[in-house]
Amino acid sequence: MLVIVITGLPGSGKTIASDMAREMGLPVITMGDVIREEASRENISPSKASIVLRLRGGTRFVADRILQKIPRSDVVVIDGARSIREIEAIEDALSTKVVLVYIVAPWRQRFERLLSRGRSDDPKVIEDFLMRDLRELRYGLGDLIARADYILVNDSSIEEFKDRVRKLLNSLLTLNNAP
Amino acid sequence: MLVIVITGLPGSGKTIASDMAREMGLPVITMGDVIREEASRENISPSKASIVLRLRGGTRFVADRILQKIPRSDVVVIDGARSIREIEAIEDALSTKVVLVYIVAPWRQRFERLLSRGRSDDPKVIEDFLMRDLRELRYGLGDLIARADYILVNDSSIEEFKDRVRKLLNSLLTLNNAP
Repeated sequence: MLVIVITGLPGSGKTIASDMAREMGLPVITMGDVIREEASRENISPSKASIVLRLRGGTRFVADRILQKIPRSDVVVIDGARSIREIEAIEDALSTKVVLVYIVAPWRQRFERLLSRGRSDDPKVIEDFLMRDLRELRYGLGDLIARADYILVNDSSIEEFKDRVRKLLNSLLTLNNAP
Repeated sequence: MLVIVITGLPGSGKTIASDMAREMGLPVITMGDVIREEASRENISPSKASIVLRLRGGTRFVADRILQKIPRSDVVVIDGARSIREIEAIEDALSTKVVLVYIVAPWRQRFERLLSRGRSDDPKVIEDFLMRDLRELRYGLGDLIARADYILVNDSSIEEFKDRVRKLLNSLLTLNNAP
């Protein structure tokens, strides 16, 4: 089983990458969806839910939740692991090493993208953006860069980034299908 | 004054980037040199010196030391800041924002490069490599990715990487010289 985990700081391009995986017909599980479901059930903000869930359930909780959603498939893409603990939870449950794809982008571009995306939990001012980065770093997202199997930079056009994602996914699929 | 700080995990390509800056005639200060000097003075390993110096002198100590070496120049390149505290120390002392260039590479390539480089403080086995990464992450090197103004990936040939470095440095110099 090929398990591709996509990670990166807010605004780096995780959603574009997982949309591309979906377009290519791959099953994609989004960890943020688990958090947003919980947020709407509890009537709190997604930011709050992401903290509450991990505080209540432990560092592996969100990973464990998404594992219930994983389809029987040869390949699966998981969008949004935040820490080495979450990666470990996924590897333990599926008895396989994940392929970690880390997406990076300069902070100014990440901030501008989040401003223009304007999802309900996206920052509107620089202070919110920095706080959100800080929260993700506290989970250990920065440290995950050391564990990255592949790194994609998203610092030019969306088309160029999509192209990089497509090429990487194709090469991973080819490797997986090799005898 | 344009202060370019180069950072990245061990084996990512910091030395190649600062060599390129030197070739382009820019003054380069290497934070690792401060540590290696101290190591040879105290007759301990550079790894140990890098911890001892920061434990004894505080998180800003190495940054403060290198500041004494900074030449009177319009542009300076500093290789090897490890944490946001070191960046802040440099910014406070020089009363300027630094431009942070973060170099990234997949772990396997970083490991292979360090193996083949074989500098005295380079890891010979995977465990040493992981320990060294861990040490750097504990300084806060992973978190610095959130603060990166520019990110360079070093995952293909050395020529391609050098080319990326040259282009980036040239564009920074051009920006700096613009009225």
